[in-house]
Amino acid sequence: MPYKLYYWDGIPGRGEFVRLALEEAGADYVDVAREPKGTSAMLKLMEDAAGATIPFAPPFLMDGELLISHVANILFYLGPKLGLAPDEEGLRFVANGLQLTITDFVAEIHDTHHPIGVSLYYEEQKPESLRRSADFLSERLPKFLGYFERVLNQNPMGRGHAVGGRPSYVDLSLFQVIEGLRYSFPRAMDSYEARIPALIALHDAVASRPRIRKYLTSDRRLSFNESCVFRHYPELDRQS
Amino acid sequence: MPYKLYYWDGIPGRGEFVRLALEEAGADYVDVAREPKGTSAMLKLMEDAAGATIPFAPPFLMDGELLISHVANILFYLGPKLGLAPDEEGLRFVANGLQLTITDFVAEIHDTHHPIGVSLYYEEQKPESLRRSADFLSERLPKFLGYFERVLNQNPMGRGHAVGGRPSYVDLSLFQVIEGLRYSFPRAMDSYEARIPALIALHDAVASRPRIRKYLTSDRRLSFNESCVFRHYPELDRQS
Repeated sequence: MPYKLYYWDGIPGRGEFVRLALEEAGADYVDVAREPKGTSAMLKLMEDAAGATIPFAPPFLMDGELLISHVANILFYLGPKLGLAPDEEGLRFVANGLQLTITDFVAEIHDTHHPIGVSLYYEEQKPESLRRSADFLSERLPKFLGYFERVLNQNPMGRGHAVGGRPSYVDLSLFQVIEGLRYSFPRAMDSYEARIPALIALHDAVASRPRIRKYLTSDRRLSFNESCVFRHYPELDRQS
Repeated sequence: MPYKLYYWDGIPGRGEFVRLALEEAGADYVDVAREPKGTSAMLKLMEDAAGATIPFAPPFLMDGELLISHVANILFYLGPKLGLAPDEEGLRFVANGLQLTITDFVAEIHDTHHPIGVSLYYEEQKPESLRRSADFLSERLPKFLGYFERVLNQNPMGRGHAVGGRPSYVDLSLFQVIEGLRYSFPRAMDSYEARIPALIALHDAVASRPRIRKYLTSDRRLSFNESCVFRHYPELDRQS
């Protein structure tokens, strides 16, 4: 039975971190909300007054009867099944810790254009977004990217992977973060990338993996746009 | 060998979600940063240029040589060992999904007083905090608390627990969220609590568990204060 992934149609967003793992593994899955009537099926599950396990928000995954929510949780569950987690149990928790740092980073990237509230439009919180983005680019972007660069450089199994000696879902997620940041903050990234050579090498290695390369040119890969976590508002970008 | 918990001294903060689980289980642990020279030991681990696994931020846990970071990850790891996770493997991922929703909720609570940047003082982002808190109290607080109330009411094993039929670390964390919200937003909670009877009943049941009751009156339990995630700024509070 195929995995069923539920996520908002039309944006890569947080669902993309799960898609990349499924695609790299060549797993059998359905991207439910992109099917006819898929979005209403997703909302029905979320609002189900009899559901034993209800998600707070997409993305969530169904594997048979089991409903699993949150990106890092889905990847922790899928990783070993897809061959994209370390074999050693302890390192699986290390991978999950890294993925949760990516989760926090993505939330902060989101809040550069939504510092006041998700129920408001960007245009309703633009002065605050300008201020938050300036802080993000000067303080947070270097802190997070510098951390992941250190993680790669200090991996005892080599700087080619975030954890262990072979590709994991964490590597795929780091690829996606770099992709998203290049879309959102091209000027900042242009001046910052020289400082994170290991991360950029990892990004390029992921992009050239056969299944990922094929996926990236397929119509399953959605483009970034201004409804996504990663948005390009030129006024929020600057050299870092 | 005792577990070693690393978290900033002087605040309950995010470390408290881990402490509650360790205390409920009567586990042998050291709260490292509260020991003499503990904070410098913690910083040394974080800055270790040779560390194979490095945390982005506290809290983190050491179990022997294994370093595990992020609250939800630590609890996912400890839960089964402490008898505070469901027996069924699938339900452990459900528990983790709930804990990650608590993580997101706590991050949003934090951002009510830090909507622009963590490197700035509250006083440097007060107008933005007023606006973000108003949105939080009208939109986000009801959404999160309403969700957890639904989770309790729809638990097939009964509304006394968030997941499964006996206490888990998720129940302990929900207790702490209610404690923190009562400290931070007493007016908003005073008017809102009537709408979440199952959550309040869970809070009270956790508070009266023998080990928790003893812990709450010990000097190991730190008071909320304005260096914590949960802060009381009366100007940010209002009836919800």
